[in-house]
Amino acid sequence: MRAIALLTSGGDSPGMNPAVRSITRAALNQGIKVFGINRGYSGLIIGDITELHSSDVTNIVQRGGTILKSDRCEAFKDPVVRNQAAEILREHGIDGLIVIGGDGSLSGAHLLTQETGIPVIGLPGTIDNDVYGTDDTIGFDTAVNTALEAIDKIRDTAISHERIFLVEVMGRNSGHIASQVGIACGAEMIVVPEYEFNLESLCFSLATQRARGEGSSGIIIVAEGPRPGLTSRLATQLEEHGEKPGVCILGHIQRGGRPTGHDRVLASCLGAAAVNYMLAGFSDMMIGMVNNEIVATNLQDIIEKKKVLNPQLVELAQLLHK
Amino acid sequence: MRAIALLTSGGDSPGMNPAVRSITRAALNQGIKVFGINRGYSGLIIGDITELHSSDVTNIVQRGGTILKSDRCEAFKDPVVRNQAAEILREHGIDGLIVIGGDGSLSGAHLLTQETGIPVIGLPGTIDNDVYGTDDTIGFDTAVNTALEAIDKIRDTAISHERIFLVEVMGRNSGHIASQVGIACGAEMIVVPEYEFNLESLCFSLATQRARGEGSSGIIIVAEGPRPGLTSRLATQLEEHGEKPGVCILGHIQRGGRPTGHDRVLASCLGAAAVNYMLAGFSDMMIGMVNNEIVATNLQDIIEKKKVLNPQLVELAQLLHK
Amino acid sequence: MRAIALLTSGGDSPGMNPAVRSITRAALNQGIKVFGINRGYSGLIIGDITELHSSDVTNIVQRGGTILKSDRCEAFKDPVVRNQAAEILREHGIDGLIVIGGDGSLSGAHLLTQETGIPVIGLPGTIDNDVYGTDDTIGFDTAVNTALEAIDKIRDTAISHERIFLVEVMGRNSGHIASQVGIACGAEMIVVPEYEFNLESLCFSLATQRARGEGSSGIIIVAEGPRPGLTSRLATQLEEHGEKPGVCILGHIQRGGRPTGHDRVLASCLGAAAVNYMLAGFSDMMIGMVNNEIVATNLQDIIEKKKVLNPQLVELAQLLHK
Amino acid sequence: MRAIALLTSGGDSPGMNPAVRSITRAALNQGIKVFGINRGYSGLIIGDITELHSSDVTNIVQRGGTILKSDRCEAFKDPVVRNQAAEILREHGIDGLIVIGGDGSLSGAHLLTQETGIPVIGLPGTIDNDVYGTDDTIGFDTAVNTALEAIDKIRDTAISHERIFLVEVMGRNSGHIASQVGIACGAEMIVVPEYEFNLESLCFSLATQRARGEGSSGIIIVAEGPRPGLTSRLATQLEEHGEKPGVCILGHIQRGGRPTGHDRVLASCLGAAAVNYMLAGFSDMMIGMVNNEIVATNLQDIIEKKKVLNPQLVELAQLLHK
Repeated sequence: MRAIALLTSGGDSPGMNPAVRSITRAALNQGIKVFGINRGYSGLIIGDITELHSSDVTNIVQRGGTILKSDRCEAFKDPVVRNQAAEILREHGIDGLIVIGGDGSLSGAHLLTQETGIPVIGLPGTIDNDVYGTDDTIGFDTAVNTALEAIDKIRDTAISHERIFLVEVMGRNSGHIASQVGIACGAEMIVVPEYEFNLESLCFSLATQRARGEGSSGIIIVAEGPRPGLTSRLATQLEEHGEKPGVCILGHIQRGGRPTGHDRVLASCLGAAAVNYMLAGFSDMMIGMVNNEIVATNLQDIIEKKKVLNPQLVELAQLLHK
Repeated sequence: MRAIALLTSGGDSPGMNPAVRSITRAALNQGIKVFGINRGYSGLIIGDITELHSSDVTNIVQRGGTILKSDRCEAFKDPVVRNQAAEILREHGIDGLIVIGGDGSLSGAHLLTQETGIPVIGLPGTIDNDVYGTDDTIGFDTAVNTALEAIDKIRDTAISHERIFLVEVMGRNSGHIASQVGIACGAEMIVVPEYEFNLESLCFSLATQRARGEGSSGIIIVAEGPRPGLTSRLATQLEEHGEKPGVCILGHIQRGGRPTGHDRVLASCLGAAAVNYMLAGFSDMMIGMVNNEIVATNLQDIIEKKKVLNPQLVELAQLLHK
Repeated sequence: MRAIALLTSGGDSPGMNPAVRSITRAALNQGIKVFGINRGYSGLIIGDITELHSSDVTNIVQRGGTILKSDRCEAFKDPVVRNQAAEILREHGIDGLIVIGGDGSLSGAHLLTQETGIPVIGLPGTIDNDVYGTDDTIGFDTAVNTALEAIDKIRDTAISHERIFLVEVMGRNSGHIASQVGIACGAEMIVVPEYEFNLESLCFSLATQRARGEGSSGIIIVAEGPRPGLTSRLATQLEEHGEKPGVCILGHIQRGGRPTGHDRVLASCLGAAAVNYMLAGFSDMMIGMVNNEIVATNLQDIIEKKKVLNPQLVELAQLLHK
Repeated sequence: MRAIALLTSGGDSPGMNPAVRSITRAALNQGIKVFGINRGYSGLIIGDITELHSSDVTNIVQRGGTILKSDRCEAFKDPVVRNQAAEILREHGIDGLIVIGGDGSLSGAHLLTQETGIPVIGLPGTIDNDVYGTDDTIGFDTAVNTALEAIDKIRDTAISHERIFLVEVMGRNSGHIASQVGIACGAEMIVVPEYEFNLESLCFSLATQRARGEGSSGIIIVAEGPRPGLTSRLATQLEEHGEKPGVCILGHIQRGGRPTGHDRVLASCLGAAAVNYMLAGFSDMMIGMVNNEIVATNLQDIIEKKKVLNPQLVELAQLLHK
């Protein structure tokens, strides 16, 4: 191997920059040239590629977003386009590609290597933590802490006004962010796509609190879920039961910001490992961290298997709220 | 004067707690008893009143929200109810009332003293900064910084995805938060209720940037304004012009959180001054800070006069964006 | 079992409060009375014990420090005193004790149960992460992030002035905080008690950078280590090699602050598990989290075995710095 | 005027970047070329000068430090060197210089224009707030908030361990940071160079608290003052009176970090005003903000007059502590 390229794809996540830094420096240290591809697959297919030197990744370890920029690329779903992408990589003398992104981006990487033979290694970069083959995705821990910081502020108002707030967190079809955030903020209830939600029981619990003379302030965490509008619908239902909940959709603040220590260390470890695996001849795999060990998983499995939400966290939240 | 009471009213704002601490300790230091009224006027009219000692306000200076809780009280708009409130204060041996809140709350205080003779001093406590008679309201600086912290995160995604984000900040009918935040975050445009907004010019400017080959990432700050939904409508209009803006409604996170140094110092100064004015026999006034001086203004003026938005800030933002 | 008590001991750590909340609510949920002991063993031996109700632990999940207060208690090293402590627990009808603290505090717990038969369960509460039997101690993740936030600020000055900064982090005899922080901040070098440190090589590397025309800004992370003054001595040595390093001793800021999501979830899980183990009849054990599983380890092992610093992290930092 | 240059000098301060952005864009908007000088006067005297375009200052408004880098330049104290500097400016076709820095840097600017006729405008950029002619210097508000955030963490430990902490803040010979921080954190005492400090009275007050059965936790804010070591000496003296104070020297974290909203708005306003004054033909002046108005003051006055510490803040802190 003489040169590798890397790109960030899909929704940006905090920790992509330390991953870019780690991959770049680890490869340069082994005498390999490194190329950065701008705007994910969208940049790849138009050859928007620049060589990266060590100084290009200086002082980025603490920055949110991705210096390589990112994109969701519809065109890359076309095998013809993927074939052209492989050509472009070959023209640049690039012997392998490292892709940082969520499961959609990793699917693209899998197809690229299957169809064209370009060696590919993936890294799990998404705040949603919905990627099989790693305990945490890069960006998940930061998103949880960003949501918590926002909720700790909302709690001030919830307490001062003795009010219930519905707070919607990101996570697409999964409740990973919601369940972590829910326990960590002491939520009254956590609504996730993976489990049934009992509105009656929540209303009963709130009414009981009030009957006991306790103020009914509290936080209910709602995972955004597959269809938009869930949180507003819940608010309406709570109003029909006589509650006057506030509603906060945390939104995109969860995707940015300085990565946490955990995400920076994770990204640095996975980045260096990705280079090692690629140089050792592996391909079509994602590098993750499972039980504190670097683990490589076939991209086929990453795409087909679903990471299961730990039911104990949701139960624990139920146990611990007052 | 032997005893005073204090309450926080309307939307909570960061800095209410240091104001409560300052009033309490300044009064105790002068040998005056202090009573805290819970839940604003709602607590007053049911006599939910407790004596405050120095230790009750220990270690609250750094906390968001208000330990006295707050409420918006419809009943207090009735003069009969205000008369009963005065009775309750007299029964408790309370000789004067300090009210921390926005203009609605200060209107109630004005009517209370006009109708019943109970001495009243007001302090401007709201994040919106829409109160005449003070350069800054207690909570405004914190809200601006909270919004900025969120926007600095959103910017990471805006840059990474080369995307425009519409960010809605609070401020009710006024653009004070929006204009400060807009300059401070380097916004492409600031939309405030006080000024006309030219969508065509924004779209033209965005298109020009793209034509120059510059990425069209950017932040547009929108004041929530009198009618909900403005930001969504703007987003739709931008879409009709071919943009794909992201939308973030920052919402209630702006009302909570640790108060900034500025808000804690302001609240501490105004709180101690409020006690001094009350003990000196003044009433029906709000204490503010204008040009670094403590200034007392008749509540009548506070209610009738509108604080004007500094047009230079909005112009400056236009000048400085790229 | 009818009643349990809990205390926090040794240096406070962020996450002790969510642990207190979790233990209290988990026990109350099982119909067990809960007593809080103030000021660690110092409060235990004078019977400073209060019953805890669910509302006593409301809204503490986000707070640094410990509502039970903490102390280092010399007197508890005396077996006579420990015997009296057991008597006091029995007089209060307390059937078991949960201790949250570092290895010194857990040693005391071990001796107490060995000598008096009082059932004891320990939880690892210290920022230093130097406790065997758990991947992370409660408070470690927050301390790492607090140090990082400070270092990200110091980096601004390091870059602006093209200067090297020596930053001393906590960790007593261990380099756990230093190595995590070092990787996460992109340190030029990490100095930990566990490994030899080569000053010549650092100076050579800095001189090389300058010779290449690169600014020699950078961060060197130094673990405080067993003897105070290491960082100042390093600074003097660097000055003798012609460098002009800045020095920052981060100090106690690393012990406080809102716990991170990770620490809150960890503390919540371990707290509930501690109650389960105690009610199931276990004693003389510490509950930790190893590879995402709850693990109980004999306190004897906790005291005798040393958690080993992962050498890969220090090597990785060397690999990744420019 | 066809071209201006700007530099940042002395200790970096948060807000220098928004000032650089504002100056650059305001000048470009008027059709003036802008040159950035690297490393303050050190860069000027070796001609380290680059043209700045609008895109060079994109997305720097939120960054601490200064993209132009900064330095303390001994050589610039020599009039011969200043004469050479003027030559270099003329060779680059630069018609005026804007200097952002503290009083030392502004003295240099004053001498430069007096001796060489190069038009010069100064902006107050230092965290210490010890510059006459402006209510706040650029960076002061951020430094106060950074110190507060650190102290709010230290307070967690102070409360948990019922301990006094001496916290040393920056400010050189002035107590501006200390007095703001002291009030804002609810300090037990504030020690500033401007006023006598009574150790006996502090010890008496602490002993009284303990005698009343109140925990003697608390924060004492100490301005670093002209000679290093004051805080350690105070700690020793407190120990001789039987206290066991903790000591924290906050140090360089106060100089970095994202600027606050206040500092960004201040820097943006002053930067644009500096360009206006320079284009209107003014020179040898500093632009500050006094009572919310842009004010230009002769650099001679800036150098000779001392900004007085507001005694009311120190008194207020005494009044409000328990």
